Amino acid sequence: MNLPSTALLTDHYELTMLQASLKSGTAHRKSVFEAFARRLPAGRRYGVVAGTGRVLEGLQNFRFLPEQIEFLREKKVVNEETLEYLANFKFSGNVYGYAEGDIYFPGSPILIVESTFAEACILETFILSVLNYDSAVASAASRMTAAANGRPCVEMGSRRTQEESAVAAARAAVIAGFASTSNLEAGIRYDVLTVGTAAHSFTLLHDSEREAFEAQVASMGKKTTLLVDTYDVEQGVRTAVEVAGPELGAVRLDSGDLVDQAQWVRRLLDDLGNKDTRIMVTSDLDEYAIAALQSAPVDAYGVGTRLVTGSGAPTASMVYKLVSRQGNDGEWVNVAKAAANKASVGGRKFALRRLNDRRRAVAEVIGIGEVPENDGNDRELLVQFIKDGVLADGWTGAEGVRRAAQRHHDSVSELPGAAKRLTAGEPVIPTTYLHEDAAN
Amino acid sequence: MNLPSTALLTDHYELTMLQASLKSGTAHRKSVFEAFARRLPAGRRYGVVAGTGRVLEGLQNFRFLPEQIEFLREKKVVNEETLEYLANFKFSGNVYGYAEGDIYFPGSPILIVESTFAEACILETFILSVLNYDSAVASAASRMTAAANGRPCVEMGSRRTQEESAVAAARAAVIAGFASTSNLEAGIRYDVLTVGTAAHSFTLLHDSEREAFEAQVASMGKKTTLLVDTYDVEQGVRTAVEVAGPELGAVRLDSGDLVDQAQWVRRLLDDLGNKDTRIMVTSDLDEYAIAALQSAPVDAYGVGTRLVTGSGAPTASMVYKLVSRQGNDGEWVNVAKAAANKASVGGRKFALRRLNDRRRAVAEVIGIGEVPENDGNDRELLVQFIKDGVLADGWTGAEGVRRAAQRHHDSVSELPGAAKRLTAGEPVIPTTYLHEDAAN
Repeated sequence: MNLPSTALLTDHYELTMLQASLKSGTAHRKSVFEAFARRLPAGRRYGVVAGTGRVLEGLQNFRFLPEQIEFLREKKVVNEETLEYLANFKFSGNVYGYAEGDIYFPGSPILIVESTFAEACILETFILSVLNYDSAVASAASRMTAAANGRPCVEMGSRRTQEESAVAAARAAVIAGFASTSNLEAGIRYDVLTVGTAAHSFTLLHDSEREAFEAQVASMGKKTTLLVDTYDVEQGVRTAVEVAGPELGAVRLDSGDLVDQAQWVRRLLDDLGNKDTRIMVTSDLDEYAIAALQSAPVDAYGVGTRLVTGSGAPTASMVYKLVSRQGNDGEWVNVAKAAANKASVGGRKFALRRLNDRRRAVAEVIGIGEVPENDGNDRELLVQFIKDGVLADGWTGAEGVRRAAQRHHDSVSELPGAAKRLTAGEPVIPTTYLHEDAAN
Repeated sequence: MNLPSTALLTDHYELTMLQASLKSGTAHRKSVFEAFARRLPAGRRYGVVAGTGRVLEGLQNFRFLPEQIEFLREKKVVNEETLEYLANFKFSGNVYGYAEGDIYFPGSPILIVESTFAEACILETFILSVLNYDSAVASAASRMTAAANGRPCVEMGSRRTQEESAVAAARAAVIAGFASTSNLEAGIRYDVLTVGTAAHSFTLLHDSEREAFEAQVASMGKKTTLLVDTYDVEQGVRTAVEVAGPELGAVRLDSGDLVDQAQWVRRLLDDLGNKDTRIMVTSDLDEYAIAALQSAPVDAYGVGTRLVTGSGAPTASMVYKLVSRQGNDGEWVNVAKAAANKASVGGRKFALRRLNDRRRAVAEVIGIGEVPENDGNDRELLVQFIKDGVLADGWTGAEGVRRAAQRHHDSVSELPGAAKRLTAGEPVIPTTYLHEDAAN
C-alpha cells in the first residue's frame, strides 16, 4: 500500500515527547535507538526477521501533510513550535539492521536508528507495528515450512486477520518459505505468486456437485483443484474423476480427520486411475498438524488462521529503546532502563552469528564497541539500509521480498538441526554478550 | 484509510469462482450470503460486533482500477469475460446486519448480503477480514471495560500489531467502551480522543530523572502524567512531586507488582500532600489483571498487547456462507454444507434478542421465514445498511463509531449479570433456532 503519509500511524506520546524535548533543548542530541526482542515466544527455538522492507518503504512516506498538521493543531496535541518541526520533518539519519528473512534471537539488535532524539523518537510506533506483526507471522511460517519439509505450503489466511495485515502476512509467509498466497493485493504489490480455485459456495450455487465440477473444469481446465467435501467425500472424489478424467490436477480436503482421509482418498484416486492427481489439505492447519500429516500422502498444505495469527504468538514482543545518546558536552552516554523485568542493555551494538567449522551456528554474539577480529567463522549480521536519510537499493518492493526469501533459506540452513524441533525448548543457540572491555 | 481501491484485498479464488460461474451461467443467480460465527472463542460469554462501519466504507471503494485489471490479465488470474465484468463492477445489492457495537452469539447472522452470486461472492474476503479482526478486538475490549467497572481504559497497543490493524483496534476498543487511544491516525479518521505523555526514552534522554520531569512539566504543565519507574519508583514519585507540586496530574507505573506498588504509591502520594494525583498503570494488562487491580487504588488502565491481539483470541472465527440461492426456475433453494464439524444452517435468517419483563436478554432467537409476532419483548437485531447499492446514513465514519459505542453500552446493559464473569463458561444466553414451520 502507498498511503500518502504514514506519519500518524504513531502514538500520541511520541509527539508530546518531541515537544518537551524541543523545549528543554535535548531534542537534537544525537541518539541511538534499537529494536529488539527480550525473549522469543514461549518454547520457540528461533525467530525470523520480517517487515524490514515495509518499514523502509513506509519511512519514505513518513511526512506530515498539511491536513495532518491541522488535525494536530486543532486537537492541541502539540504546540506551534513542534508543528513547525513536524511540517518540515524528513528523516536524515542512519538505519542499520538484520537483513530481512534472517534469524534472530533474544537481544538481537534487529533494527538500529542513529539520528537526533527527535527524529528517532517519532518513528518508534510505526517501526514496531511493522516488525512485530510481520516477524510474528514469518516466525510461525518458518516452523510450518520446516515441518512440511519440502511439500509446498500455500498462505490462505487473509479472511482471518485485518485486511492490510493480510497483505503483510502473505508477504511474510513467502519470505519464510511459503510457495504462494491467495492474497491478490500481495500479488500486485510484491509480485508473489497467487493461487486459488473454488470454495464450498461454488458447489452450493449449482444444482448438484457434478454440475459445479463440470462448470469449474469447463472454465479452468482439467488441471484445476476440485473441492470434494461439500457433501460426501468419497462420492465427491468419484464425481471429480468422472468429470475431469485422469488429468485432474488435484482434490482439496477441507474438513474431518485429514490423516485418515488423505490415506483412503489416495488409494481411491489410484484405484480410479488418477495416480497423478494431487491431494491438497486445508483445514485449520498449523505446524503440528502439518507434522502429523507428513506420514500421509498429502501433496500441498493450505494454511490460514494459525499462520496469520502467529500460531499462538500474534506479536513478536519487540521493543524500541534508547540505548545511547550524547550529553551537552557531546560525549556519548550509554543508557538503559533499570525497572524490574524490563531491563535493557545500553550502548550501540554489533552482532555476529558465530559459526563452527561446518558452517553451523553456535552463538549469537552481541557486543558494544569494536567488533572482535574475525577468524572467518563469524557472519556479520548488521547491514546499513539508510545513510544520511538515503535508502539503499534492493531492500524494498518485490526485489526485497525475493532477497529476503533467499536470506531466510540460507540462514535456516545454518542453524543446528534442533531448530526444527516443534517441541517447546530454549533458543537453539545462546545469545552471548561481549562487553566493551572484553572486546578490546 | 482511503485506499483508492479495496478490490484486491481479496482471495484469488473469489475471482476464479466468478469466472466459472459466468461461464456456467450461474453467476447471476440471486443469492444470500451470511457472515456468522459457529462458536465464540473458548469460554467467552458473548461477542461484540465491530468492523461493520469499516466494511461499509470499504465497499464504497470496492472498484477495480485499470492497473488492477491489467495485473489480473498479465498474471492470467481470470479470463477476458471476467475482466470485463470486474471493470464494470459496482455492488448493487442489499446488505443487512447487526448494528455495530451490538452483542452476538454463536449463529447470529452478523452480516447478510443479498445480490447475485457474482456480486456477493467477490466481497467475501474483505468482509471477513474486517469483521474477524475488529470483532476479536472489540470482544476482548468489552471484557476489559466490564472488569474496569467504570475506571477509564486507554488503548495503547498500536506497536504490538500491524500498523493498519492498530487503527482498526483503536476504533474497536472505543466502540467497546475504551475512553481513548494513543493512536493518532484513529484520531484523525474517526474523531476519537487520543492521549499520551512520555516514555522511558524521554527520561533516559535527559541527564537525570529530575531534568526529564522538569522538561515535561515545563512543556505540558503540572497536570501531566509522569512516568516514575525508569530507575527507582519511590524516588521517582518523590521527584515528581517535588517538580510538579500538589497539582501533579498523575503518575504512571509500567513494571513490577502493580497491585502492591499502587497501594504504597497511593499512600506515598497522600503523605506528600498529593491526594488528587492519580495513578495510571500500564504493564501487560488484560481483563484478568484489571480485575485483580480493582481492589488497588488505580485510577486508569492502559492496555496494549492483549487488547490488539484479542486477549488470546486474535480472530473471531466468522465465516461467510451461501445460505440460499435461486435455481433456474427462479425458486429459492436453501443450501448448507454438510461436511463434518463445519455444518451450517441454510436459509435467509431473521434474528431477535428475546428479553424478559425486566428487559434482560434470555435468548438469541434465529429463524427462517416470517418473523414471529412480537409480544414487545423481542428486539429485532437486523438493520438495513445498503439498499440497491446505496449506503444508508449514519453507519460510517466518526458518527458510526459514536453510535456503535452507544449501541454497545445499551446492549451490554441488557445482558444477564453473568455476562461479566471472566471465568470460562457457556454463552450467557442460548441461541434458539426457529424453523420455518415453527415460525408460521
